[in-house]
Amino acid sequence: MTTGAQVVIERLLAGGVDVCFANPGTSEMHFVAALDSARDMRPVLCLFEGVATGAADGYARIAGRPAATLLHLGPGMANGLANLHNARRAFSPLVNVVGDHATYHKPLDAPLESDIEALADWAHGSVHRPASPADIGAAVDSAVQSATGEPGRVATIILPADFSWGPADSNPAVPQQQQAATAGMAVADVADLLRDRGGKALLLLGGPANTAAGLTAAARVTAATGARALVETFPARLARGRGVPHHDRLAYLGEQAAEQLSGTTDLVLVGARSPVTFFAYPGKPGDLVPPGASVHVLAPADLEKLADHLGAPPYVDSPPTAPTVPSGPLNPQNWAEVIAALLPERAIISDEANTSGLFLPAATAGAAPHDVLTLTGGAIGQGLPVAVGAAVAAPDRPVIALQADGSALYTISALWTMAREQLDVTVVILNNHAYAILQLELQRVGTSATGEQSRSLLDLSRPDIDFASIAQGFGVPATRAGTAEELAEQFRAALAEPGPHLIDAVVPAWSAG
Amino acid sequence: MTTGAQVVIERLLAGGVDVCFANPGTSEMHFVAALDSARDMRPVLCLFEGVATGAADGYARIAGRPAATLLHLGPGMANGLANLHNARRAFSPLVNVVGDHATYHKPLDAPLESDIEALADWAHGSVHRPASPADIGAAVDSAVQSATGEPGRVATIILPADFSWGPADSNPAVPQQQQAATAGMAVADVADLLRDRGGKALLLLGGPANTAAGLTAAARVTAATGARALVETFPARLARGRGVPHHDRLAYLGEQAAEQLSGTTDLVLVGARSPVTFFAYPGKPGDLVPPGASVHVLAPADLEKLADHLGAPPYVDSPPTAPTVPSGPLNPQNWAEVIAALLPERAIISDEANTSGLFLPAATAGAAPHDVLTLTGGAIGQGLPVAVGAAVAAPDRPVIALQADGSALYTISALWTMAREQLDVTVVILNNHAYAILQLELQRVGTSATGEQSRSLLDLSRPDIDFASIAQGFGVPATRAGTAEELAEQFRAALAEPGPHLIDAVVPAWSAG
Repeated sequence: MTTGAQVVIERLLAGGVDVCFANPGTSEMHFVAALDSARDMRPVLCLFEGVATGAADGYARIAGRPAATLLHLGPGMANGLANLHNARRAFSPLVNVVGDHATYHKPLDAPLESDIEALADWAHGSVHRPASPADIGAAVDSAVQSATGEPGRVATIILPADFSWGPADSNPAVPQQQQAATAGMAVADVADLLRDRGGKALLLLGGPANTAAGLTAAARVTAATGARALVETFPARLARGRGVPHHDRLAYLGEQAAEQLSGTTDLVLVGARSPVTFFAYPGKPGDLVPPGASVHVLAPADLEKLADHLGAPPYVDSPPTAPTVPSGPLNPQNWAEVIAALLPERAIISDEANTSGLFLPAATAGAAPHDVLTLTGGAIGQGLPVAVGAAVAAPDRPVIALQADGSALYTISALWTMAREQLDVTVVILNNHAYAILQLELQRVGTSATGEQSRSLLDLSRPDIDFASIAQGFGVPATRAGTAEELAEQFRAALAEPGPHLIDAVVPAWSAG
Repeated sequence: MTTGAQVVIERLLAGGVDVCFANPGTSEMHFVAALDSARDMRPVLCLFEGVATGAADGYARIAGRPAATLLHLGPGMANGLANLHNARRAFSPLVNVVGDHATYHKPLDAPLESDIEALADWAHGSVHRPASPADIGAAVDSAVQSATGEPGRVATIILPADFSWGPADSNPAVPQQQQAATAGMAVADVADLLRDRGGKALLLLGGPANTAAGLTAAARVTAATGARALVETFPARLARGRGVPHHDRLAYLGEQAAEQLSGTTDLVLVGARSPVTFFAYPGKPGDLVPPGASVHVLAPADLEKLADHLGAPPYVDSPPTAPTVPSGPLNPQNWAEVIAALLPERAIISDEANTSGLFLPAATAGAAPHDVLTLTGGAIGQGLPVAVGAAVAAPDRPVIALQADGSALYTISALWTMAREQLDVTVVILNNHAYAILQLELQRVGTSATGEQSRSLLDLSRPDIDFASIAQGFGVPATRAGTAEELAEQFRAALAEPGPHLIDAVVPAWSAG
């Protein structure tokens, strides 16, 4: 007999999904058992669902195809929601398999019963609940197709336990047509526009435009027309370093972003969304499109055609000087220079450095070629799980997780999965003993925290958190660095040895002055 | 000027809510700042939202009134959902304050934008979003009233950032009428029923019936009528130990529960829900009401009246012999005996021992009087946060968290809040290096995991997790125990010293065969 759980795995494999980041429970036990007869599916145990969903996001950003997650009913999916939110904002293809109570058990409102569809809807994902055991194969196929459409998205298969353990038909469903990619303005029209507007036109690059090829084409276009280009604030994946043209990113702080965009009469979105501020602030605009400016759309696939149409010469790389290792006590700038100087070729950076990362883009512009994965949806606790997924997707590439202390704790058990799978991840904790971004934001929203009560909610001292001790508890070798020299030595050693390492880098909080 | 945030705090205090378990972000900064002018509101920083919501649940179970949480938009609430699910199943009163984008920023779909109401609905809670700044006071008042109704529930105030920072009217709203408590059968009719059916009638005790007074009245009723009584499987709060009559709990395993209920013709629910199994299993019933049995309802408030109406004599305590400290390597039984033997008077046990806790109820029946808080909704990761909340609610009572290893990791940063607040909590990790409950459940759902792939998802070794190292990283003193003597010595020492302690007790997984 073929069980429903076996059909799910068969159809996932047929759809090219062969990694499953899992945190199962009772309702998923038949899926777990079915893994023994499906050696091509790699199960990766995560100790919290937010690690599983974040890892699937990181996997998708690097592999360009979906991983599955295995989650336990509504509460399990709830624990994974924040990183599904980030995955949604990254347009990452991702297939959740969520076990549910047996169909006849569901009306009894047993303790773990809840509305799983509502959670999947919250993440703006597609929901695929088979109506009968015969429908399981089609549900899985449609979920994989939905996830891998253009753009990628979060698809959720809800699998009742009785369907999972009962007999099911493994016949594949008829594949549906792939959706066409988003169309944009005609290349010739964009060429005319950019020639006409010059420096008053601005390309905002996002999604597929942030590959080395896209960024190179954008550099040719700007060189040929005088138009400007910026990369979106939080790219899902951004090519960087020597050989890749550097474009500034649109700033996180609305005031700075407004300044970058000022004077623009024509904004051309190339895979990016129209820019808005992260938060509202009293008396400041939230929509960053300059008043009176026109907004246009160019399909990312047309960027190279545009460069060719313009007759733009090939891009010639003139990278900034490669950084050198600095010295002295760590500060918000020199730690980034250490990383940049020692960054290995083809590294993947999972960047959740937050306020500590202010000087990172400038430092790494002349570093070895690498990819950067950023916090797309603002839901903190993404960095370590995304590093797990990236390392599973690219076992031959070094992964560097640059991780703010406060955010690290949301999904800290990701360290254990790094140890279990012996992933080649070097975690650098930027430990400023504070929710430093909130100390900054407090001023920006026009208030202050001068009292003991409010300050107690923004600092992470009393007691200080010892990340090296925590990492060792999860089986990850760890050290602490207080100077640039120590960080350099420990970073070199971590890169030289296979498997995960953590460096607790004590970096004072950045201060505007 | 009085800001909206200040009005929220004022009205919470007016409603008796004076503790706030907080994990704020930018949209909550004015609430944070407003705390400095509201010294009566105690802010407690949690490093993950699931800790905040679980702590508020634990606080409510002990204090009998709601705490507030402070959560950051939809993703922050999402991180807190699993423990809101448990709080909902515990009928705990709880008031979430969730910051939202400014009203005019919300339509821009900024990165952290999501449907907060959908999350509050998922937890079956009431939602209170003020329509204008003038409406803030009324929204808070109605939230507190909703939370503290009969039964208690999760109420969520959604506070747009511009309402929070703008001027608002602090006039209190007119209080609404409290809902009446659930009515049940007339006392005289229940008395007749129990006299008539004798041992074929069974009282299922839940909610308010699980106080010492309720359990005592139930013991008088069963003594007078021959009827039987059981406590619900996962009580929110259960009085236990010397001076309190012991009633067996309805078993978690459906087979055992069915045996306990067999022969029952009349089931009387006293504050409990009609019993169903936690999960469905192939070929086994999910509804535990014996076929043909009638189900009746008695209001918990009427339990003592029923005992008096029956002319039942006063309860005379004859507790089991107090346990003594055992010796030898730790096993699933003797660790529970150590705790029972050394349990201090008026202790609060937060019980998420799961499979390791099988022998705990028998061991503690003759222990010092105490309260037990159990995993009401099955969403693991409740135990440590609930211990935080209980300790904040009752600073004069020792709190003991009996915590399974796998479940501990979902909300492990609760340890830091114990250290920050110097809470008198002794955490005992029952470390069997496995998701032991899943190894059990795998057999029960009629399948097996004999292969490497499936077994890798059920064991927590490779590498073993060192909870003492993790606890020290969070600032909690920690030790490891391998024998009953070591556990006893370390447990005594932890109880003798103020502040939190963790004992990593290495207890082999229980095995049925």
